[in-house]
Amino acid sequence: MTTVALSELDHRLTRLLAGTGLDHADAERLATYFVDAEASGRTTHGLQRLAGVLDALEAPDRAPRPTTRRHSPSVWSIEADGELGLLAVQRAVDTALGAASPTTSVIGVTGFSGTTGALGYFTEQVARAGHLCVCIVACESGVAPAGGIDPVLGTNPLSVSFPASPDPVTIDISTSALSYGTLQLLAHAGKDAPPDTVIDHEGRVSLDPFAADTGAQLPMAAHKGYGLALMIELIAGTMLGAKAGRVAVPGSDGLLLLTAPVDLFRGEDIVATDAARLLAEVRQSRPTDPARPVRVPGERSALARRTSRAAGSVEVDPALWKALVCRTDPR
Amino acid sequence: MTTVALSELDHRLTRLLAGTGLDHADAERLATYFVDAEASGRTTHGLQRLAGVLDALEAPDRAPRPTTRRHSPSVWSIEADGELGLLAVQRAVDTALGAASPTTSVIGVTGFSGTTGALGYFTEQVARAGHLCVCIVACESGVAPAGGIDPVLGTNPLSVSFPASPDPVTIDISTSALSYGTLQLLAHAGKDAPPDTVIDHEGRVSLDPFAADTGAQLPMAAHKGYGLALMIELIAGTMLGAKAGRVAVPGSDGLLLLTAPVDLFRGEDIVATDAARLLAEVRQSRPTDPARPVRVPGERSALARRTSRAAGSVEVDPALWKALVCRTDPR
Repeated sequence: MTTVALSELDHRLTRLLAGTGLDHADAERLATYFVDAEASGRTTHGLQRLAGVLDALEAPDRAPRPTTRRHSPSVWSIEADGELGLLAVQRAVDTALGAASPTTSVIGVTGFSGTTGALGYFTEQVARAGHLCVCIVACESGVAPAGGIDPVLGTNPLSVSFPASPDPVTIDISTSALSYGTLQLLAHAGKDAPPDTVIDHEGRVSLDPFAADTGAQLPMAAHKGYGLALMIELIAGTMLGAKAGRVAVPGSDGLLLLTAPVDLFRGEDIVATDAARLLAEVRQSRPTDPARPVRVPGERSALARRTSRAAGSVEVDPALWKALVCRTDPR
Repeated sequence: MTTVALSELDHRLTRLLAGTGLDHADAERLATYFVDAEASGRTTHGLQRLAGVLDALEAPDRAPRPTTRRHSPSVWSIEADGELGLLAVQRAVDTALGAASPTTSVIGVTGFSGTTGALGYFTEQVARAGHLCVCIVACESGVAPAGGIDPVLGTNPLSVSFPASPDPVTIDISTSALSYGTLQLLAHAGKDAPPDTVIDHEGRVSLDPFAADTGAQLPMAAHKGYGLALMIELIAGTMLGAKAGRVAVPGSDGLLLLTAPVDLFRGEDIVATDAARLLAEVRQSRPTDPARPVRVPGERSALARRTSRAAGSVEVDPALWKALVCRTDPR
């Protein structure tokens, strides 16, 4: 791994992204995202995705004009008009935070292009402002229903963040047995997929991660993951007017963000006290392996981020770093 | 199995429940619930739970006075004051439906006693009125965190219903690998628990379903189910002031119901059309077993209910039926 100063990483990214003609503030937003993804160890959604983002930004005649529409005091939709997923989701977060709604708010996003990144990055921002945040995405199809062969549904991820000290509790999971990113990592490392994660085009369980490309991924926890994936596709797909199914309803991916202040029912302080007690009980509960204490979801990322920030640097994959240097420092 | 007329089942149940001193309308509500649970094949939450409900109703000095408080135009909490879970959840549903909120509504319920029943029965009622409905429950602890031994978390179920024709799509899942009801069925049938569903008090994987009583159940899909269970406990536990953890925050179970009209972003008709197309694609997709078409969640229950209603009768477990007859027809 190559040790890279966070400031240099941020600087190079901002310059590179601004060089695509992107608005400077947006270039900074994206750079902040990528730096945080690396610093917090979310590398499957970090620099590895940069090339794809640059491809999307360098498409000809690109001039997205996202529009935000308020449907009711607490409901918005954003038609991203081809804006990058990463920026469109940030727009949704900013809309939610700007609303400072005393109750729930719901924001739907459609028409974005490219990756949305690690959803936990976005839900955490809302949680740091004292709101519970749930985010679901109906995305490109690749997952078969339980008992089925055809990849009708997306990996349809779900992220939830809950305010806590010093960091929010955050889950960020696909409803498939493996996320597509994990499957790609296995494929490129020449490793087998775990059993019951992939089927081939005839529906036979396969250990070949590439088989998912012509066959399908399987849902997590069989019918439970299938049910969740279908619900996400109904909500973030059909309610928003985004894609639903592989062929049934064409459209872009759909994303729905739901926020609610944690003091919806009772004071923020007492909720925080009770949450801290619950999290302490979880952390202090007996681990199966004495060397590996029970973790709270999101803790690993938060710890990695703190360590990186304290050091002022992060360990980056050498090939990805070299590619970034070449792009920003051509000789 | 014993064939029982739905009308006789309903009549006997209403009489028996009213005989406990329960308000007649509440006795009818409960009878309707139990008849539907049997008719729709949700037998783990049907007559099998009647004895427990009767025990709760026959407790001395029982006179619950539930109170409903409106926190904001779309947020309510219900303190059930020991009212039966089944009636308290129905109260939450009626509050949501009565509100006819043009946007989301959120209802928290605490202080109920005994089972909430099959959550899908309640979320479906909301979906039949054109609203998406999500229900989560933070319930009695019995599930270990991923990588842990101690049963810190509840089986914390999640039900979601989405309006569709002729019946809503409904999922109703525990976030544990097995629901507690399923585990009990295995235990009493002398069957093994599937691998990776139960650990003993030392954290060793066990095939003995009874081991969960001194050990713990495992979450579904390892860290994913653990993450969902913890989030449900933070939301329906700490936000509402209900139990959180095994010892950290004592209290009753907590239930949260969230509703949103499906036309939050665009017309109900177009949402219904897109949902129907998605569901048709799912149903018409290739099954792994040609004899078993891919099903939409909730379809099996809906079909069983239609069949029972058409026949005017339902097949009931003979022992449970005999117990009901003895209680209502003593000689």
